Amino acid sequence: MQLLKDRILKEGKVLPGNIIKVDGFLNHRVDIALMKEIAREFRRLFKADGLTAILTVEASGIALAAVCAEEFGLPLLFAKKAKSDNIEGGLYRSDIYSYTYKKQVTLILSKQWLTEKDRVLIIDDFLANGEALRGLIEIIKQAGAKLEGIGIAIEKGFQPGGERIRRMGYDLKSLAIIDEANDNGIKFREETR
Amino acid sequence: MQLLKDRILKEGKVLPGNIIKVDGFLNHRVDIALMKEIAREFRRLFKADGLTAILTVEASGIALAAVCAEEFGLPLLFAKKAKSDNIEGGLYRSDIYSYTYKKQVTLILSKQWLTEKDRVLIIDDFLANGEALRGLIEIIKQAGAKLEGIGIAIEKGFQPGGERIRRMGYDLKSLAIIDEANDNGIKFREETR
Repeated sequence: MQLLKDRILKEGKVLPGNIIKVDGFLNHRVDIALMKEIAREFRRLFKADGLTAILTVEASGIALAAVCAEEFGLPLLFAKKAKSDNIEGGLYRSDIYSYTYKKQVTLILSKQWLTEKDRVLIIDDFLANGEALRGLIEIIKQAGAKLEGIGIAIEKGFQPGGERIRRMGYDLKSLAIIDEANDNGIKFREETR
Repeated sequence: MQLLKDRILKEGKVLPGNIIKVDGFLNHRVDIALMKEIAREFRRLFKADGLTAILTVEASGIALAAVCAEEFGLPLLFAKKAKSDNIEGGLYRSDIYSYTYKKQVTLILSKQWLTEKDRVLIIDDFLANGEALRGLIEIIKQAGAKLEGIGIAIEKGFQPGGERIRRMGYDLKSLAIIDEANDNGIKFREETR
């Protein structure tokens, strides 16, 4: 998606450790008008027919996923990272390794809100190692729901998450795949579709 | 806001410890159509003129705040709870006590995204003890920005947060103020406006 790539080139910063900082428009200060354009692009890429929910994981993906849920006319579900006492029993759980927190965290989703009748589109802002996605997919499996597609704003193509998810056969679409991010700048993967 | 109150009465559950569970439409599974109605109500209650940003705190307020930011045509800022290495220096910080996590957490917001030129509307899903709000207000003060109003979906009127914030003179508007939540059910405060 050229609009997103242009914005990454204009405002994104590469930090040591191949960290790509886009917190001026995606995940700290959020440009909602851009999120709307991204949502429209996902609407073009994924069929809305039969979908019952948009699924994401807290926290930084929620803003984009909320705008997408509105665009698709669907409810938004977000898996939580276990820590609160506010959630009773009856949970799907999946343990993932968080590279952000540098420890294992447990994703949880109430069984009430996802069942075998659901057909789900996952939306997230970033894909790198794919641990969050692996956890969400595991939760969808536990529910017996159907995963119809995965829409990602920015994929770090030099990390293994995207490759792994595609090898599993899922319909993963990333709007900007970054293959290189270093002192020489940011390079995107050529689009083949 | 009658629509929200009706929904709370229909689907909300009271758990031991005066916990009000509305995770079927507000903060786990999110009814985006309802969020849109709430956003429109805030648009009626607060003047949009001159506002430069919607501010919230991760995680559960982000979905509502994102929909509000779209309704107001403004960018969304969300304060983070410190834990990640992805944020460099140059931060506003405010220590709050989290009743959810039962420990102190530090709210952080990058100085890049909030300055003395900003006029901010805070949006959050819940107000109980008001610690998160206190932290956001502290951050706005550090930035020298102006707080124009605070829009809350559900206020627990039997906890001290709302009273404290109003006594400080801020324009706080809660769409449903719950004065009682126990085995006898949920009772709302009469609206005086």
